[in-house]
Amino acid sequence: MGETRKFLLSEADIPAAWYNIQADLPKPLPPVLHPGTHQPVGPDDLAPLFPMEVIKQEVSQDREIEIPGPVLDVYRLWRPTPLYRAHSLEKALDLPANIKILYKYEGVSPAGSHKPNTAVPQAYYNKQEGVTRLATETGAGQWGSSLAMACTTFGLDLKVYMVRISYDQKPYRRMMMETWGAECVASPSPDTNAGRAILEADPDSTGSLGIAISEAVEDAATTPGTKYSLGSVLNHVLMHQTVIGLEAQKQLEMADAWPDVIVGCAGGGSNFAGLTLPFLKAKFDGAATRIVAAEPAACPSLTRGTYAYDFGDTAGMTPLVKMHTLGHTFVPASIHAGGLRYHGMAPLVSHLYELGAIEATAVKQTAAFEAAITFARSEGIIPGPEPTHAIRVAIDEALAAREAGEAKTILFGLSGHGNFDLTAYERYLNGDLQDYDYPQESVEAALQSLPMVAD
Amino acid sequence: MGETRKFLLSEADIPAAWYNIQADLPKPLPPVLHPGTHQPVGPDDLAPLFPMEVIKQEVSQDREIEIPGPVLDVYRLWRPTPLYRAHSLEKALDLPANIKILYKYEGVSPAGSHKPNTAVPQAYYNKQEGVTRLATETGAGQWGSSLAMACTTFGLDLKVYMVRISYDQKPYRRMMMETWGAECVASPSPDTNAGRAILEADPDSTGSLGIAISEAVEDAATTPGTKYSLGSVLNHVLMHQTVIGLEAQKQLEMADAWPDVIVGCAGGGSNFAGLTLPFLKAKFDGAATRIVAAEPAACPSLTRGTYAYDFGDTAGMTPLVKMHTLGHTFVPASIHAGGLRYHGMAPLVSHLYELGAIEATAVKQTAAFEAAITFARSEGIIPGPEPTHAIRVAIDEALAAREAGEAKTILFGLSGHGNFDLTAYERYLNGDLQDYDYPQESVEAALQSLPMVAD
Repeated sequence: MGETRKFLLSEADIPAAWYNIQADLPKPLPPVLHPGTHQPVGPDDLAPLFPMEVIKQEVSQDREIEIPGPVLDVYRLWRPTPLYRAHSLEKALDLPANIKILYKYEGVSPAGSHKPNTAVPQAYYNKQEGVTRLATETGAGQWGSSLAMACTTFGLDLKVYMVRISYDQKPYRRMMMETWGAECVASPSPDTNAGRAILEADPDSTGSLGIAISEAVEDAATTPGTKYSLGSVLNHVLMHQTVIGLEAQKQLEMADAWPDVIVGCAGGGSNFAGLTLPFLKAKFDGAATRIVAAEPAACPSLTRGTYAYDFGDTAGMTPLVKMHTLGHTFVPASIHAGGLRYHGMAPLVSHLYELGAIEATAVKQTAAFEAAITFARSEGIIPGPEPTHAIRVAIDEALAAREAGEAKTILFGLSGHGNFDLTAYERYLNGDLQDYDYPQESVEAALQSLPMVAD
Repeated sequence: MGETRKFLLSEADIPAAWYNIQADLPKPLPPVLHPGTHQPVGPDDLAPLFPMEVIKQEVSQDREIEIPGPVLDVYRLWRPTPLYRAHSLEKALDLPANIKILYKYEGVSPAGSHKPNTAVPQAYYNKQEGVTRLATETGAGQWGSSLAMACTTFGLDLKVYMVRISYDQKPYRRMMMETWGAECVASPSPDTNAGRAILEADPDSTGSLGIAISEAVEDAATTPGTKYSLGSVLNHVLMHQTVIGLEAQKQLEMADAWPDVIVGCAGGGSNFAGLTLPFLKAKFDGAATRIVAAEPAACPSLTRGTYAYDFGDTAGMTPLVKMHTLGHTFVPASIHAGGLRYHGMAPLVSHLYELGAIEATAVKQTAAFEAAITFARSEGIIPGPEPTHAIRVAIDEALAAREAGEAKTILFGLSGHGNFDLTAYERYLNGDLQDYDYPQESVEAALQSLPMVAD
């Protein structure tokens, strides 16, 4: 029998609790501020939008938060996810035996990415507190379809405001949401004040994530029985994703391969945090593991952004969070990794970067897709455009170690499959994929819009 | 902890050998005949198209055929596949505790269906015998993409002739093949005599599986170093698929749930056979398990076809096989389950039907999609259009048992996911999906084209 490719756990090995890194931070997170008063927000400020359990988790200092039984029951549909040893990729790269590559694969979920890890508990907590309907926004559709799957499981209605350009270009994601029973409209829509105002000014608006957030928040705030749900950035979202890293730790023990470096792609930060936060605990205790965020060169919030208080949305309606930001009015170029096109970075990930606990590197998309083709033709799985950035960095780490004659074990997160993103591969193979330089001027312009917060 | 949803095996539990039911048939299969002489074909007749190991397997009477190590290594990318207890579906159907539904899920493969189970060994045996390039046809693209994945793994070139109408309507499957490095052309193509002849007569031809087979066979027969590969119907293909049923048997033991009835969808027959052949061995030994093939009402070869010698392709170029057929010139209606649109049924499955070892039932597509929506909204997985037929039958078996107050354990095969078939769900949800009655007249016409073979 050949060498093991997948390290598999049983359902009993799904973690019983999420890991909350706030308990272990050497320095606490800066507070979230009210956009009007610039004073720290309290639970009452957030209650119109989120269920109380989620608000509590957002600020909890408890190291472990138990995963409810009904959430575990749904996780069991696809969790534990496999951790792979990339034997074929290693062979394709002609690596010596002392350089190993492993990856944790979240594409086996029904929606095809890591997003259901938080969609399911969010739907559950809302259901528990008597909420009957959720509203959310989605860009390329990964978050909207994940929440649709979670809502149908717990019998909640869902309305998804999907950025118009994706709504038109990616009909499959919309159909997926409808198959799971959700309502999906193009944003800007005629269904909200925010949407109508935009359409009045520009009937042909292609929309933006900022506009869609405004519509979903307005819907939740004004519709009885409805709350709002967010798929990244916030602390509770990142914490729900730690099931990824917690499972990976058990699997690495099975593989007898502890990573020297861990790579995750980072847009809003939830995938990156889900894989790496459990390893940061060991790092705070002195472990030497390097932890690298791979972000797109066209939207490099960690490597080129400013660490400052900014709005989470484009329209400037949300509370202010301290994060690495390119400015909330910055519009990233149309790279294929739609899930990485966000002007800021999760406050928790930004804080860890400031603490020097993590590194970051920016990757251009043609280099990312070149790595993805090498991966797809060796390992057989076609990656989503977002994790191609992590694959590029993982391969570069391996090649550098070979060059230097060093032993190295590399773990990266394969956050989803690319079944709905094949046009990006076609464009790459045809030589039609464009790279974008660091958007100096538009970032400088956007940073002018940062709110003035006294330190 | 809640009840187990997935029964998981380790990589060591992947079967070491395929099960060859030819060793246990109460009556041997009728021979394959040469289309010109009507005499049984020998290995030399098939050697231009297939590697010798595959030709041997086609007629082998050995009960077990060992799976080569390099094939197992690739199987390990996604195998063993999970067997699910459908707790949420059972709840949605309001079933009593003594009625259980289980399903074996093949959608976790990189190509999203069971097809790689035979694509991988076929690519391997060709590589072993010095073949450098394969040619094949594909309808909706599931087979072509599976063989593309297998060929990139073993370093073989591949050309896929894809039925023109699918080539135009399902670009994602083509892009998937190209991502894995295969060449994919629309059929009829200007690259073969067969294709050019069709295009000359009808430049706007939308193609057919029969034409595409003719092109691929001509390519293989006339290009040095090239052989042909088929994704269903033949004995060796069905045998490669028995890993499905062999794994399922181990998992059912873990679940302590032996099925009273097993349901699989059947087009060419490879998915159905892969799940059920290992259970038929027990049935020949006296087990009472019912085994049901679910076929589309628009293409009901088992329930309404004639058991006779016929061609495997539309153009009449292949050897003659005895099977249930609607006539090789029969053109099925454009149902969404492209994988079930075949005029005949695998000779082995046909033989088992004649022996009374299996049952068959025909399902209309709106009834199939109704069941699929119930399934997707409870179990979370969106099924491919083909296995929706099996889901319909499984649900009907469960509801009938509830009505009758009987205990029943039902196993069905979920042969693939529906990520590339969401337009079918949209049409169903919009009420635009059409049903087709039994195509009496066109079948009668097609049966006129049956070759005259003296018994």
